[in-house]
Amino acid sequence: MAKAQTANKGVTPRSEDYSKWYQDVIAKAELADYSPVKGSMVIRPYGYALWENIQKALDKMFKDTGHVNAYFPMLIPMSFLKREAEHVEGFAPELAVVTHAGGKELEEPLVVRPTSETIINEMYSQWVQSYRDLPILINQWANVVRWELRPRLFLRTTEFLWQEGHTAHATAAEAEAEALQMLEVYRTFAEDFAAIPVEYGRKSHAEKFAGAVHTYTIEAMMGDKKALQSGTSHNLGQNFAKAFNIEFQDEKGEMQHAWQTSWGMSTRMIGGIIMAHGDDKGLIFPPKLAPYQAVIVPIFRTDEDKALVMAAAKELKGQLGDLRVHLDARDTVTSGFKFNDWEMRGVPVRIDLGPKDIEKEQVVLVRRDTGEKMFVPMAGLQERLTTLLDEIQTALFERAKAFRAANTHMIDDYETFKTQVAGDGGFIHAHWCEDAACETKIKEETKATVRCYPMNAVPEAGSCVFCGKPSQGRVIFAKSY
Amino acid sequence: MAKAQTANKGVTPRSEDYSKWYQDVIAKAELADYSPVKGSMVIRPYGYALWENIQKALDKMFKDTGHVNAYFPMLIPMSFLKREAEHVEGFAPELAVVTHAGGKELEEPLVVRPTSETIINEMYSQWVQSYRDLPILINQWANVVRWELRPRLFLRTTEFLWQEGHTAHATAAEAEAEALQMLEVYRTFAEDFAAIPVEYGRKSHAEKFAGAVHTYTIEAMMGDKKALQSGTSHNLGQNFAKAFNIEFQDEKGEMQHAWQTSWGMSTRMIGGIIMAHGDDKGLIFPPKLAPYQAVIVPIFRTDEDKALVMAAAKELKGQLGDLRVHLDARDTVTSGFKFNDWEMRGVPVRIDLGPKDIEKEQVVLVRRDTGEKMFVPMAGLQERLTTLLDEIQTALFERAKAFRAANTHMIDDYETFKTQVAGDGGFIHAHWCEDAACETKIKEETKATVRCYPMNAVPEAGSCVFCGKPSQGRVIFAKSY
Repeated sequence: MAKAQTANKGVTPRSEDYSKWYQDVIAKAELADYSPVKGSMVIRPYGYALWENIQKALDKMFKDTGHVNAYFPMLIPMSFLKREAEHVEGFAPELAVVTHAGGKELEEPLVVRPTSETIINEMYSQWVQSYRDLPILINQWANVVRWELRPRLFLRTTEFLWQEGHTAHATAAEAEAEALQMLEVYRTFAEDFAAIPVEYGRKSHAEKFAGAVHTYTIEAMMGDKKALQSGTSHNLGQNFAKAFNIEFQDEKGEMQHAWQTSWGMSTRMIGGIIMAHGDDKGLIFPPKLAPYQAVIVPIFRTDEDKALVMAAAKELKGQLGDLRVHLDARDTVTSGFKFNDWEMRGVPVRIDLGPKDIEKEQVVLVRRDTGEKMFVPMAGLQERLTTLLDEIQTALFERAKAFRAANTHMIDDYETFKTQVAGDGGFIHAHWCEDAACETKIKEETKATVRCYPMNAVPEAGSCVFCGKPSQGRVIFAKSY
Repeated sequence: MAKAQTANKGVTPRSEDYSKWYQDVIAKAELADYSPVKGSMVIRPYGYALWENIQKALDKMFKDTGHVNAYFPMLIPMSFLKREAEHVEGFAPELAVVTHAGGKELEEPLVVRPTSETIINEMYSQWVQSYRDLPILINQWANVVRWELRPRLFLRTTEFLWQEGHTAHATAAEAEAEALQMLEVYRTFAEDFAAIPVEYGRKSHAEKFAGAVHTYTIEAMMGDKKALQSGTSHNLGQNFAKAFNIEFQDEKGEMQHAWQTSWGMSTRMIGGIIMAHGDDKGLIFPPKLAPYQAVIVPIFRTDEDKALVMAAAKELKGQLGDLRVHLDARDTVTSGFKFNDWEMRGVPVRIDLGPKDIEKEQVVLVRRDTGEKMFVPMAGLQERLTTLLDEIQTALFERAKAFRAANTHMIDDYETFKTQVAGDGGFIHAHWCEDAACETKIKEETKATVRCYPMNAVPEAGSCVFCGKPSQGRVIFAKSY
């Protein structure tokens, strides 16, 4: 039996078993597959098409903000990692190590990049001599490896795809502005393309990137009310510049170390899109990133009708211009099967077309997010569909925003805090004294962590939800992926 | 002193030292750099922009021929490689091996993919059950590692970027048609985008891919008259399907092994573009792939003129639409420096703009390939420039074709053959008996190898240039990279 025939069996409802639902939609929609190597995944064509759309949108935003792409080697001498003490401490447990190559044992082991600060900054130290060589604004699209003991497709895999930006600047202020600019790029991408509202702000010291001065993050709420860290932007200060000796002569002729940032977003974002929008029937993709924005399902009973409908369907597809439209021409499955299949696969709009529709010069549009059915004239369909896709994009964002609002809580006492985290979960805005000891205790007792200091929060004096000491403002706590 | 200031010193002339010229243009044009790990390279932004244009053109052709992209894991269990005997024999000496990960020694070593037939076909064996699941037409953009003892930037590096297509079909005929189709895609890309004429045809048994039934290749002539294998397409027959058990039930209900192909083109193509078109002054990029198709150089002496010229230059750039135009706004170097710099960097057209040009509402266009200078009205510049870029694209192709024709020789006796290879080189069309022993002897004695059985050759009976035994037609011999 062909694979496609099994897809119709449906997915485990979200409400019943969220984790099983997540696995089911990925398997049945053929987004990804586990590979024979523990922890690593195969991104299948339907999942990869989503990644290509993510790449296209992000890459344009990077270039519009003055960045260029480049490519640095994947294998990094082990000694490079050791040059920045916090960095190696953070990544050592996750490294994959090449010890043999070309039939011989290597003199120095090479690590498969878990991130590329070290190799990139080694090159920057060779390229930068003068303030005229700055800023360097480079991004790289690459695979990275971080050994995972408890892998989950897209969310935590041994190998994943991402982009990593690495910049070098002549002043501290420029580096900070760059880190904030890229946070804003990620926020814009998440909200305007992925239709996922995000909290954004600085990470706590305990949660920052190994080697950074501070880390900015965007945090999204998933359908189970947990947080997903979806993109991070780091101000590295002069930490790596000192470790790798990136020195330049400034305008006054004095030698200085460069100020740096790095920032990344990964295939994890696909997991975020799945979990932020999906429902009991399966996936719901935001139109701006969906592999197919609409699917035409031809409907017929007789061979005569088939010829008529298929010809009209092909013509229709041709009229829809640059919209990403797929014509489901399979004749091994029924149209009922196709309805369920594309619903499960999250295509924003279904276009049904039968002999009667052709007679009336109309099509039937079905919205994936609401199930709404619309009879629409064929003439002007491209414009109508474009508008509808925009409406769906906005509706998904508004729905996710409303969901987050309904699951965001201001909590001021620790008992309520514990009950909320253990019960209904969600994002908790609470006061915290910024002492790492309280943060650790809260994490141990509730599994909730500080997601960020939200940047758009109104300053408000209060007292730490755990210890009662003074606090400058609320931070966001949540359980997270 | 800023890097840019050193670029003006010029490159070693091609005629003087071809290999030094190649290194010089790559270094001075900032296309790539050696990394601290022996044999691996950093692709710098200007080189990577060329790769992005190559990717865009190829990716479109792949999609237009029905292929989709996906991504498979980079780390492959060592045992997988051993399943296809020829394959492991071919790749074993070049493997990089991960023996430790996550702080432990692995039970089974993992190799960093040198190519992905094994891991991909393992997945195909899980995905394919029925003829309805075929064909599978997947491409992957990825990095691969093959340990190199004598690396050369772009041509032979330990890690390189490429695309690898992997397809599975229900019949032998379909697989053969696919292999030939992708050869044609590569030929079209090389000739229509890279402006490099190629010989195309089947490889000899000795030169085919490890594990293939046969390999098709495109072979380009470089500026030093050596051949560069620039893209290959393999008919794998059922070799991997048998090794990985890719079985399907055909329409009659009988079990069959799938028929397969794989095909790849890599960052090596950048080396080909450099060597096919460059001259003593540096690079010449074909307009369709050039990172910048034109560069505007503003010319002024006074601050007053500067303001006027820069404003006009910005406006001009804005008027050039989708053309890839760069405005060289550097004020740390002279315009004379810029002329030399962009000439060396291979930008097809320079656009000079000074106060007098603005007065006359004209610009000066300078062709990189011929040095020709043209005074052209500002009005309608986009159309004029578009036409000029097309002319340059064609001129580069025609020049390369003429060069190849002038350096292609029909040779029928071995003494002349040896003298030609040892002397002026080039492509030699000669008869060969197809005996591997003759091929090996010729290689040992002259370093020339069989590049391909040219597919567009007229059949012609003759006798082997080495042993005199009968031959069905000429093959192409050349020294190669």
